[in-house]
Amino acid sequence: ERPRDYGIRFGVLPTGPLNAITDVPGVRVGQVTIREGERVRTGVTAILPHAGNLFQQKSPAAIYIGNGFGKLAGYSQVEELGTLETPIVLTNTLSVPTAADALIDYTLSQPGNEQVRSVNPVVGETNDGFLNDIRGRHVTRQHVLTAIRDARTGAVAEGNVGAGTGTVCFGFKGGIGTASRKLPTSLGSYTVGALVQTNFGGVLQIAGMPAGVELGKYSFKENLDGSCMMVVLTDAPLDARNLKRLAKRAFMGLAKTGGIASNGSGDYVIAVSTAYQIPHDSKTPTDTLTLLRNDNTSALFMAAIEATEEAIINSLFAAKTMTGDQGHRIEELPVQRVVDYLKKAGQAR
Amino acid sequence: ERPRDYGIRFGVLPTGPLNAITDVPGVRVGQVTIREGERVRTGVTAILPHAGNLFQQKSPAAIYIGNGFGKLAGYSQVEELGTLETPIVLTNTLSVPTAADALIDYTLSQPGNEQVRSVNPVVGETNDGFLNDIRGRHVTRQHVLTAIRDARTGAVAEGNVGAGTGTVCFGFKGGIGTASRKLPTSLGSYTVGALVQTNFGGVLQIAGMPAGVELGKYSFKENLDGSCMMVVLTDAPLDARNLKRLAKRAFMGLAKTGGIASNGSGDYVIAVSTAYQIPHDSKTPTDTLTLLRNDNTSALFMAAIEATEEAIINSLFAAKTMTGDQGHRIEELPVQRVVDYLKKAGQAR
Amino acid sequence: ERPRDYGIRFGVLPTGPLNAITDVPGVRVGQVTIREGERVRTGVTAILPHAGNLFQQKSPAAIYIGNGFGKLAGYSQVEELGTLETPIVLTNTLSVPTAADALIDYTLSQPGNEQVRSVNPVVGETNDGFLNDIRGRHVTRQHVLTAIRDARTGAVAEGNVGAGTGTVCFGFKGGIGTASRKLPTSLGSYTVGALVQTNFGGVLQIAGMPAGVELGKYSFKENLDGSCMMVVLTDAPLDARNLKRLAKRAFMGLAKTGGIASNGSGDYVIAVSTAYQIPHDSKTPTDTLTLLRNDNTSALFMAAIEATEEAIINSLFAAKTMTGDQGHRIEELPVQRVVDYLKKAGQAR
Amino acid sequence: ERPRDYGIRFGVLPTGPLNAITDVPGVRVGQVTIREGERVRTGVTAILPHAGNLFQQKSPAAIYIGNGFGKLAGYSQVEELGTLETPIVLTNTLSVPTAADALIDYTLSQPGNEQVRSVNPVVGETNDGFLNDIRGRHVTRQHVLTAIRDARTGAVAEGNVGAGTGTVCFGFKGGIGTASRKLPTSLGSYTVGALVQTNFGGVLQIAGMPAGVELGKYSFKENLDGSCMMVVLTDAPLDARNLKRLAKRAFMGLAKTGGIASNGSGDYVIAVSTAYQIPHDSKTPTDTLTLLRNDNTSALFMAAIEATEEAIINSLFAAKTMTGDQGHRIEELPVQRVVDYLKKAGQAR
Repeated sequence: ERPRDYGIRFGVLPTGPLNAITDVPGVRVGQVTIREGERVRTGVTAILPHAGNLFQQKSPAAIYIGNGFGKLAGYSQVEELGTLETPIVLTNTLSVPTAADALIDYTLSQPGNEQVRSVNPVVGETNDGFLNDIRGRHVTRQHVLTAIRDARTGAVAEGNVGAGTGTVCFGFKGGIGTASRKLPTSLGSYTVGALVQTNFGGVLQIAGMPAGVELGKYSFKENLDGSCMMVVLTDAPLDARNLKRLAKRAFMGLAKTGGIASNGSGDYVIAVSTAYQIPHDSKTPTDTLTLLRNDNTSALFMAAIEATEEAIINSLFAAKTMTGDQGHRIEELPVQRVVDYLKKAGQAR
Repeated sequence: ERPRDYGIRFGVLPTGPLNAITDVPGVRVGQVTIREGERVRTGVTAILPHAGNLFQQKSPAAIYIGNGFGKLAGYSQVEELGTLETPIVLTNTLSVPTAADALIDYTLSQPGNEQVRSVNPVVGETNDGFLNDIRGRHVTRQHVLTAIRDARTGAVAEGNVGAGTGTVCFGFKGGIGTASRKLPTSLGSYTVGALVQTNFGGVLQIAGMPAGVELGKYSFKENLDGSCMMVVLTDAPLDARNLKRLAKRAFMGLAKTGGIASNGSGDYVIAVSTAYQIPHDSKTPTDTLTLLRNDNTSALFMAAIEATEEAIINSLFAAKTMTGDQGHRIEELPVQRVVDYLKKAGQAR
Repeated sequence: ERPRDYGIRFGVLPTGPLNAITDVPGVRVGQVTIREGERVRTGVTAILPHAGNLFQQKSPAAIYIGNGFGKLAGYSQVEELGTLETPIVLTNTLSVPTAADALIDYTLSQPGNEQVRSVNPVVGETNDGFLNDIRGRHVTRQHVLTAIRDARTGAVAEGNVGAGTGTVCFGFKGGIGTASRKLPTSLGSYTVGALVQTNFGGVLQIAGMPAGVELGKYSFKENLDGSCMMVVLTDAPLDARNLKRLAKRAFMGLAKTGGIASNGSGDYVIAVSTAYQIPHDSKTPTDTLTLLRNDNTSALFMAAIEATEEAIINSLFAAKTMTGDQGHRIEELPVQRVVDYLKKAGQAR
Repeated sequence: ERPRDYGIRFGVLPTGPLNAITDVPGVRVGQVTIREGERVRTGVTAILPHAGNLFQQKSPAAIYIGNGFGKLAGYSQVEELGTLETPIVLTNTLSVPTAADALIDYTLSQPGNEQVRSVNPVVGETNDGFLNDIRGRHVTRQHVLTAIRDARTGAVAEGNVGAGTGTVCFGFKGGIGTASRKLPTSLGSYTVGALVQTNFGGVLQIAGMPAGVELGKYSFKENLDGSCMMVVLTDAPLDARNLKRLAKRAFMGLAKTGGIASNGSGDYVIAVSTAYQIPHDSKTPTDTLTLLRNDNTSALFMAAIEATEEAIINSLFAAKTMTGDQGHRIEELPVQRVVDYLKKAGQAR
């Protein structure tokens, strides 16, 4: 059960039907979970903004860096050109090169890309080295290609899956989480979806309530640290400039969960619009685009904040206690205790 | 009474003695409130990081832009050189030039500055044009010089004062607010102080509790918009790079109050360290500085988040209902109702 | 006579008919030169991208900061929203607030702007304090309003005029310069125009030839320093992202003249497209725009480099020896000697 | 013979003894050239700022992005923390992941790094896909590790070596180039060294002279495009902020060779100081650093401009005609013709 099933509310906007990033039409997610023996707890999550050839039909995109202690691949080209040309892959810190190489494999081998000699793989990561033998670099190119191949629309698994298999969040087991918001007709009917890989610290707040304090587990009482990858998709017709602004709001959503973007944190948001594509080749020197005006972005901003906040808490509700490398063990969030705590405050039912 | 007097808590770190930006030793604040007739509701707030000649003894500083729909003066030079060379002045949007001119007046006239031919005035603003006849530009240079001259250490007035005289926040009367955090000895004993000019919208949360929903007043239910200026001072020895990181955390504090950094928002954070100064002239080509390592910044980050969040809510608790230009009227936050609401949830006493 | 009249060539692209920023259709320039007595040597240059209400019909724009030791007003809003809503005004460092105030006056008083309560004045500057009594702040709002009112299409005066009245460049008299490039039909027939206010140092190169060395006047042999404001207009349909890229290329043009962007330099480029406007108000939530594709920007980049380089050298050829404040005297570039030097090298006729 | 041997001068500052990046004490360079059969023309160049454990003793560093159409790895962490923790590796576009993986191998295996679980590999690239079978990804981890292992002080091979094996510049054979400047005692005696991987287009200028025009080969006459990686080392005690400013000046050096930073260009500058290190672990919360004041950076800026310009031209003088993949052939710069041309203009002897 997800927080919303307990009557917990994050903000005021309605969710999409799945309350998932895949509520944005056409978006597909694929995940490979790698659990082997006592030590390997890692994986891959792939997000594809549309079903076509992503290189030939580039998606408008932007990346916002909340705190840059991370190894995300692909930043500068997205920043310069405003487009994404590969799937987005999330994995662990030391497997970024493997994932990037797999994205090159994938791109070079797509029909129509026979002449492609330049690819900008976008790979995000957090460090699962507490539960996972990260130095062993157990993610293979094949894992990544499988995640991409298996990507599909529909519900998205949360918790100890994919790139979230071995992550830790607020001292509890973290993982993959997702959520969405659907704007009312008066605000454009757009959908904003978020998917997160939670691996960070701070003072946990759930729907505002200081659960971390209640549970006695928070930064500087304990040594909590780490990172968060956030992916935000929308069908609103935003250009790269406004997508970067949208991405920044996801970071505000992280703040609302009590994250502090500590020194050691790699907090990145990749925002992509599915409303249109920029063709790699064109017979015309111009593109004619219908773009949302600045004035109409605020509701999307609020949607990105809410969806990201909820996606993070969703990851905590879904993740299960895990033992991993070196016998390290991380407990899951005590969901019932949290729900009872919120109930007393009138914030759950 | 301030929120903390009702037992409302923002985070986990202790406050400084005054719970104000002036807990950072040497920091002075001066405010001029301009209320004239039915239409003029504006003012000036000045913050001085030290008591010396600010131009000759520059303070390490950085400015973070949360959302840049604003007219802050002085950004690029602070960004390039990493120093502040004037008092920080806050006022209304259309009075930025006047305030900048006054800062030039002030700087040129300081003893020792007879040869100064270049001054980078730093002026922040929000738009008080709903309650104030902003087009009348009623702030004069003299107002600004008075605020600087009258700046002092000690308690800081909050609410409808200075640059917060005519502002509106979450649909209620906003204003000036301040708060601080004092790190425990184990984390370096540093103080972080925040001062805010609140004039923005979103879905108000007080210590996490969704007060805006409870009170039925929030963005897209009503038309709430606007900006927030944040000033963060610390005696921790940070360089400009880490001050910029600190500044970014203040923006996270804003997020925790339910701010959404809407399209029309000018959200800026000016962060300054009082731990050392950079002399304008020097006989040596180098400066020897003792700087906090990256690894030790996280507690300061958390302090900046907490202090900013509390400063914003403080501004709302202090501000009083105001009528102004065109008969516009903004109600104060119904403090008792809010406190009762938080009490029921166990978040106030 | 301008360098081109001596057969000096800057790059390979053809100029527009006037070889001026006003070759971009609709662009108007107005200048007020302020020379009074022995000490006052300053002025104002205003550039208007189109003849309509600039606030109601905003121009897509971007600002690139080469070196940020400067006091340019208006940066962050242009960066955030991608639009310009006032004339661009250039003046001296300490008169930026006066100019900004005048731009507010201008905007508030335009028919149709009766309800405007927020204006983002864009003002650039360099420091003419060697020849000009800059501390006296002799520029008035009226000077600025006059420059705007008198702005017109057609040829642009260069040298000791407007904001270039008192500037110094490479140790010689600097000033205002302008140039343009017109792309051939195969590259889109677009025009790129540059206007510069030259006040900087380095090792002067004219069409590549090391004239500064030849003339025995260059940085670190003498104490040369200072800033350069660059304004680039184009009728190519660029969005803000690509305008920022275009702006960066103007800075490359500065580099080609031997400028070094010294520590004390405030080097800013404001780039604006005249191809379309973004209306302040709109009945629709979207704008439909026809925008140049990334792939087709390179020729514009080259045009901006060439035009800026030439505009800088044009300013030096036009400026005349001047005596000013404190009896300071700056010699003009010895044009004939330079031409002879280039002739010998086959770079002039 | 290098340009300087022909009496060609770039700027006014003296070179270091080797006129190479290795004039900066302690800097080592290693290169592996990969030429196999008809199709493989690529390689690896590694730059190490000091001889110790680079992860444990991090070097202050910054990365400036001229034009970001590139795949450089490691940007955001360097930007956030201001330090470099691996060797810098240059290679071809599609081999960045391989090189990054090799840097992780290298770092994890260094004595003292047994507990390291996070590594930020810094890898730059340009696209050698015209002469090289880039899709074949012929660079192996072993190539990279060999380049690092073989890195040494002393003279640096230029032209068709290492990461420059298959590159093309201004339509001629490009490659690796290097140069340096040594400031006079009065300016601090610091050394600035540059190393470049040249693979870009524009209108070639050699010591200012329009050689590209003379040789009839330049952008938009022909289809020239591409990228340039620049690495700048200095023993001046700069912090990350000033290193970023220094890096930006290298991009100005590129501009002086006639580069235009076309849309397709990935132009990055990595700047590193060898004057001090930041230890990964420390018993104290602060570091005491002696840092060059802003005021004293300008001569270093000029040195970076000059050294980068000369390094680029050095790469062209050293590179030899090459035939590669698909029978593509790129001619070397006709050095004698160029020298004769410069001689006539008095710019060579």
